[in-house]
Amino acid sequence: MDKILRIDMGAEGGPKVTVTPLGEYVGLGGRAMTSAIISKEVPPLCHPLSSENKLVIAPGMLSGTVAAMSGRLSVGCKSPLTGGIKESNSGGQAAQVIGRLGYAAIVLEGKPATEDLFKIVINKDGVKISVDNSLKMLPNYDLVAKMKTEFGDKISCISIGPAGEMKMNIASIACTDMELRPTRHAARGGVGAVMGSKGVKTIVLDDTGMTMRAPKDPEKFKDANKRFVDGLKQHPVSGQALPAFGTNVLTNILSEAGGYPTYNFKQGTFAGASKISGETMAELETKRGGMPTHGCHRGCVIRCSGVYNDKDGHYLTKQPEYETVWAHGGNCGIDDIDSIAMLDFLDDNFGVDTIEMGATIAVAMDAGIAKFGDAQAAINLVKEVGKGSHLGRILGGGAAVTGKVFGVERVPVVKGQAMPAYDPRAVKGVGVTYATSPMGADHTAGYAVATNILKVGGFVDPLVAEGQIELSRNLQIATAAIDSTGMCIFIAFAILDQPETFQALLDLLNAFYGLNLTGDGVVALGQKVLSMERDFNARAGFTSQQDRLPRYFSTESLAPHNVKFDVKDEDLDKVFNW
Amino acid sequence: MDKILRIDMGAEGGPKVTVTPLGEYVGLGGRAMTSAIISKEVPPLCHPLSSENKLVIAPGMLSGTVAAMSGRLSVGCKSPLTGGIKESNSGGQAAQVIGRLGYAAIVLEGKPATEDLFKIVINKDGVKISVDNSLKMLPNYDLVAKMKTEFGDKISCISIGPAGEMKMNIASIACTDMELRPTRHAARGGVGAVMGSKGVKTIVLDDTGMTMRAPKDPEKFKDANKRFVDGLKQHPVSGQALPAFGTNVLTNILSEAGGYPTYNFKQGTFAGASKISGETMAELETKRGGMPTHGCHRGCVIRCSGVYNDKDGHYLTKQPEYETVWAHGGNCGIDDIDSIAMLDFLDDNFGVDTIEMGATIAVAMDAGIAKFGDAQAAINLVKEVGKGSHLGRILGGGAAVTGKVFGVERVPVVKGQAMPAYDPRAVKGVGVTYATSPMGADHTAGYAVATNILKVGGFVDPLVAEGQIELSRNLQIATAAIDSTGMCIFIAFAILDQPETFQALLDLLNAFYGLNLTGDGVVALGQKVLSMERDFNARAGFTSQQDRLPRYFSTESLAPHNVKFDVKDEDLDKVFNW
Repeated sequence: MDKILRIDMGAEGGPKVTVTPLGEYVGLGGRAMTSAIISKEVPPLCHPLSSENKLVIAPGMLSGTVAAMSGRLSVGCKSPLTGGIKESNSGGQAAQVIGRLGYAAIVLEGKPATEDLFKIVINKDGVKISVDNSLKMLPNYDLVAKMKTEFGDKISCISIGPAGEMKMNIASIACTDMELRPTRHAARGGVGAVMGSKGVKTIVLDDTGMTMRAPKDPEKFKDANKRFVDGLKQHPVSGQALPAFGTNVLTNILSEAGGYPTYNFKQGTFAGASKISGETMAELETKRGGMPTHGCHRGCVIRCSGVYNDKDGHYLTKQPEYETVWAHGGNCGIDDIDSIAMLDFLDDNFGVDTIEMGATIAVAMDAGIAKFGDAQAAINLVKEVGKGSHLGRILGGGAAVTGKVFGVERVPVVKGQAMPAYDPRAVKGVGVTYATSPMGADHTAGYAVATNILKVGGFVDPLVAEGQIELSRNLQIATAAIDSTGMCIFIAFAILDQPETFQALLDLLNAFYGLNLTGDGVVALGQKVLSMERDFNARAGFTSQQDRLPRYFSTESLAPHNVKFDVKDEDLDKVFNW
Repeated sequence: MDKILRIDMGAEGGPKVTVTPLGEYVGLGGRAMTSAIISKEVPPLCHPLSSENKLVIAPGMLSGTVAAMSGRLSVGCKSPLTGGIKESNSGGQAAQVIGRLGYAAIVLEGKPATEDLFKIVINKDGVKISVDNSLKMLPNYDLVAKMKTEFGDKISCISIGPAGEMKMNIASIACTDMELRPTRHAARGGVGAVMGSKGVKTIVLDDTGMTMRAPKDPEKFKDANKRFVDGLKQHPVSGQALPAFGTNVLTNILSEAGGYPTYNFKQGTFAGASKISGETMAELETKRGGMPTHGCHRGCVIRCSGVYNDKDGHYLTKQPEYETVWAHGGNCGIDDIDSIAMLDFLDDNFGVDTIEMGATIAVAMDAGIAKFGDAQAAINLVKEVGKGSHLGRILGGGAAVTGKVFGVERVPVVKGQAMPAYDPRAVKGVGVTYATSPMGADHTAGYAVATNILKVGGFVDPLVAEGQIELSRNLQIATAAIDSTGMCIFIAFAILDQPETFQALLDLLNAFYGLNLTGDGVVALGQKVLSMERDFNARAGFTSQQDRLPRYFSTESLAPHNVKFDVKDEDLDKVFNW
């Protein structure tokens, strides 16, 4: 990981490959790398689909090593959805493979003059780029199957589906998992549309012949990794709840807490929660011969994913995440678990963000396009997106565009990006994150649900305004740092609660790079990343007025607690005061 | 005009009428009135379609008097299209009638809880509001015919078509002309969607029994009006070109100047210009028994409009404006004058902004939805808008939304509003206005075409950056003031070139109100209006970064002059330094 691979897709005579040393980007990884490059090299006022935008794909600092949980990939660009900077984050195999291939970042630049679709193959011998128009409009599963036939099963794929080719705001970038299935997605913010605008259908990665990245101090690294893994296994969330039930363990918890946005954010509990809960899903997966516990990349010890089979016992999709189950489930009034799994598959296959897709369907339901609770209608709507019909194009624009097109007032977005599966009125800490994150509404940017609901890292009452600013601030800083390491965000539960596990993480970084990083250094890194991102957004025309929830969250009460979002504007403006 | 009529459409038990004294709004009219009320009373971050937005309808300071040209109506709100403050301006009879009925403003507030559609009737006896769901989805011509049957032909109507009911971003508010036809529109910025969100289909006005508004000094007023009219008639633009050929006299002029945006702003001249020019149109109107010279309201002495008959000599539409002919003509590569007239009729009937509609179709053509030059396809697309099909809904969202939905990069908008009929690269003064006007891209906000191309008010070379900032600044200030008087903007040619005509305007205001207004006072009024508007926009989250053209205008050269927009950003930021 001592070099950057740059591919100018708009070069005269065809794509041009350049490999450069890290230069000023030395020492950065993941989100720190993507945000640094975007912030420095992309004109903030450029059109997100223009040749001036760049797509930066960066493994984390520890990706490609044997460190557990280090397989997260960051994808950065100016977002077509928000108009601001974007880092979208994915599991799967890609980060480890890119790390072992030695690249700290792959940067797609420029824009082809033609409508040709390109395939990029990267292995130990270098980079090959070719036109392959036979891939046009292939869904992700078919694309990956074709690549497998062509290049064998030792590969990993990064790809876009039809949504990315159509440059939809909700288009994701898929990464294959251990079974070479396109189930892990850098989904938020329309990063797939930017890849589509560059004319790149897939990046096929093969690290055959490459070795694990070697730490400076192998013994210390090994020891730190052991303590790190022990800590993860010991914490009840990462050691028990997530492996057993996946992220969908949250369905019952949030609905019971009254913070589960139901019927397009109209109430905080969903009567059908138990039918689509993680507990129900795990039982069904076991019964049908799927798997309730499965990792998304090699080196994962939490294994929060799973395999979801259909009624006949055939693979349908990976275990849908909580946010997906919510977006397509309670938020649309749908309580049929098989339909939700089908929607998850369709989203992955067409290459769209499940959160934005579900939130958009709920807005469309408010516009009268379909009825709340109608699972078949929801499936049909996602198929319209895959087809690119006019209705599909509208929905492919995301919740904000769909609201504009149909004249809907209640559209739960911040900076144009749909809110995920936690109502900001009843989980106010995550409401602060939604409002202020440079990414737009994003739970992963500062997951205050942990402290508000799960009582991890202490407890801050989710229903009161007090304490939420500081909570969100600290979590946003920590997250920006973790997102730079390549570590899965689910290590946060253990490192928040167990100082020795946090120390183990520091020791991993220090042993690998020969550093003397302390907790303060991690905070400084997180702050640096956030500052770069906010600086980009300011230059793109964002002010504190964009750090606000839609006003109806402050005027409409949410049942059952009858709470409004009452964190004051002047306090929201203090989140980044450090 | 000593009172404000407020109608709370969201009041418990049905709409509630309140008549209040002018209070702090005393002395204001037109745009000064609408922008003052919106700026003070509407929360800048509210959803434009929410109950918190207000629709303010205000005649100008001199509307309802015998002063020539004083029939302009201002309509203000937070714009669904731009997200900023909006004043959209219309001719027709309404301003005079409202003035004579004594209202300085009609303010629609709140939002009904039901889907009912309301009809408001205002006459000398007061205000009657009733549910009339038989009006649902009536096009404007049918609506007006129905009102005529119901209330006789002494009325004037303000109304929305299907687009407004569907709350489309491009929806206009129609005002009837002297023949009780809905041909004059407050069209820009989606003001019709706001009226639609209030559940108001039409405001029927009848000033029977009311008298002209009386000046404080009738003799001085009469004398000033005579000098004013003489000045207008004497100037070559308002005295000759506009009466003879209408605004469409500009087609040949702009195409010859290389500033006529053709094929979605790809070149500056249009081969088919002469086929759709004002000269051709006037000849055809005369030949078919229409009228090449006609006023849009009583008291107009310029009479730049006309009547356009079809091939069989039957009324088709009013004489389409230059910007309409451009939007549906050269910008879409269409050179068939009858098709353009049909498009004008359809736009008026469905109630959409002709500029935004044409600009949107050109973007859709770039997306491959129709072919440039295909007039029938353009007609079909507008009919889709009227029907509210999914495609129609997309187009009804305007050029920016259409670009987002179809993934088009070249979308000529500022603050989400489409640029009108002058390419900012070849008419750089109007480019500065597009970039910086609080209204979004709007030629009328500071019509530098006058000085750049028509050599009115001096001459500033349209192709160079020098001098454009000062030109646009002065014109924006003057326009904000004129838009407050109720005067048609076409008085500007004469008052810019002829000091005695400007003095006559001052004398009209002074004689009517008993003031001692000087040129400095007019400047101060214009600056005050712009400051209020910019303050609202700042509180809505706008910064100098929104005062920019899309970047491709600075990177792509426009033929035939091969010019880019090269006014510097730092200079754009000086427009409002006074």
